[in-house]
Amino acid sequence: MASLPIRTIGVIGTGVIGSSWTALFLSKGLRVIVSDPAPGAETKLRDYLHKNCSSVPAARSSVEACLQNYKFVKDIGPHLGDVDLIQENGPERLDFKRRLFAQLDAQTPSHVLIASSSSGLPSSQFITECKNNPARILIGHPFNPPHLVPLVEIVPHPGTSEEYVNKAREFYSSLNKDPVVVKQETPGFIANRLQAAVCAEAYSLISRGVVSAEDLDKTMTSGLGLRWALSGPIITNTLGGGGSFSHFVDHLGPALKTWLDDMEQHKFELDSKEKTDALKENVNEWVSHVDLQKAEKERDEFLGELLRKKLNKANWRS
Amino acid sequence: MASLPIRTIGVIGTGVIGSSWTALFLSKGLRVIVSDPAPGAETKLRDYLHKNCSSVPAARSSVEACLQNYKFVKDIGPHLGDVDLIQENGPERLDFKRRLFAQLDAQTPSHVLIASSSSGLPSSQFITECKNNPARILIGHPFNPPHLVPLVEIVPHPGTSEEYVNKAREFYSSLNKDPVVVKQETPGFIANRLQAAVCAEAYSLISRGVVSAEDLDKTMTSGLGLRWALSGPIITNTLGGGGSFSHFVDHLGPALKTWLDDMEQHKFELDSKEKTDALKENVNEWVSHVDLQKAEKERDEFLGELLRKKLNKANWRS
Repeated sequence: MASLPIRTIGVIGTGVIGSSWTALFLSKGLRVIVSDPAPGAETKLRDYLHKNCSSVPAARSSVEACLQNYKFVKDIGPHLGDVDLIQENGPERLDFKRRLFAQLDAQTPSHVLIASSSSGLPSSQFITECKNNPARILIGHPFNPPHLVPLVEIVPHPGTSEEYVNKAREFYSSLNKDPVVVKQETPGFIANRLQAAVCAEAYSLISRGVVSAEDLDKTMTSGLGLRWALSGPIITNTLGGGGSFSHFVDHLGPALKTWLDDMEQHKFELDSKEKTDALKENVNEWVSHVDLQKAEKERDEFLGELLRKKLNKANWRS
Repeated sequence: MASLPIRTIGVIGTGVIGSSWTALFLSKGLRVIVSDPAPGAETKLRDYLHKNCSSVPAARSSVEACLQNYKFVKDIGPHLGDVDLIQENGPERLDFKRRLFAQLDAQTPSHVLIASSSSGLPSSQFITECKNNPARILIGHPFNPPHLVPLVEIVPHPGTSEEYVNKAREFYSSLNKDPVVVKQETPGFIANRLQAAVCAEAYSLISRGVVSAEDLDKTMTSGLGLRWALSGPIITNTLGGGGSFSHFVDHLGPALKTWLDDMEQHKFELDSKEKTDALKENVNEWVSHVDLQKAEKERDEFLGELLRKKLNKANWRS
């Protein structure tokens, strides 16, 4: 049954992530049944879709068609028989998710893939009450905002079947997303860990006065980040090693180790009030002069342009 | 004298970095006197300029004009009176650099800024024999390739005068580069430290089998890197904190700490043969299927396009 076509998505929760997923699904021509019990959620969602459906790269539906193609409901329960896939975006509270997933698993046809956008809780922790088919439950963690950024981290729990991991990968790929598979449940998955590594060192350098917050960000946007948008750390290392990753590690490993040892010595302590105060002060000195709304708007516009270009590029696999 | 216009650049060394700087300077309309004692260096440089001058974003000279506007010499010595700025790209050997900088400082007019592209040696270590004006010596460390990537890390030594730090910043900015100032000599400066932080965690995740090398790179190119090309870690955190960096640190600091603690527990050991072998095996399984030449070519083309777009964007400072 797993190969039945996916036409209708159940989206649970219309916060930032749920609304953005809804925009993505609709603009790719899927039908969406979307639920949120919060007062005013329906209107907020409509406004969001109105504003954002047009910016999805490689959209297949007009904004007008998107706005016709979803049904907002207070309670997803009575509609669980009508969906071909669920993308859940509820609050990250263990008791809440346990109850919710027990219900979803009990009432959704047992072949239907259930993906959670959870960034913190691994699914092994909240499927404990699922008696029907927990093998079809996994994490499908997007990168914000999902209607623009292609990354989705698929994180199975130890009992998720390979079939559903593959199904999730195919589904997200069919929407021009770039899914990656996190093979073991790991705190922070992949992206948040890499991000934490950068933030920890950034905080250290700024709080120690080695670099201003503005210049730290510029180091990323005018250098590292530009390169990383186009080639990841491994291919970058490989090119830096003249085409050989092993050569890179053997020859530049010692320098890398020197830097890492120095970083270890000056490690930022997130639980030190003195250090976090120094950090905040340095940051706020700059950020108070930044037009954040403009920054965000331009970032998202630029991201959209960049992605439309990227979609036209061929894959590097030979 | 420091405000005299800069028209002629002395470039020392025509390896990867020196050639790329030469392409940049020429295409911005500057005259270059460039030296390298290696056999065949002159022809290699000419080929390089022929291929690369046209891809410099916001070029001000045609490729033909670029090719007319430089003089290749075996020895820079007799020309040190004719340059308005020096960009040095010699081998990263302390004894070599000490001798070279003693000569440059002695023979170049004392108001002329002397910048070294050194990525490893801080200038305090190699100015020890400079008796004339070591206050005009600093590091101007580019990000590869300098003719495309805007980042330049300016790293003064404790005796560099502020005047020359400002002069370097103005000069690089006038070429559409984005200079940052590293206020204290720090191993790896800024970019290489942030890069090392990411590589260390990437190596750990890959060698432990949490994620494939291919998916690790995709996490960057389809998510984190895309975002970091447009907003750095600090502004990203600030937007994630609803416009407040302090709010972000206070509310997401604990999650960040959980991830960092777990990363610390699974820290990659660069000096363990067993671990680096596991890493190399995992990486090579993928990289052997990647068309690296195509990857590099597409990256550089795309980078050029991206930068031309970025140059047209306004600054976010309000």
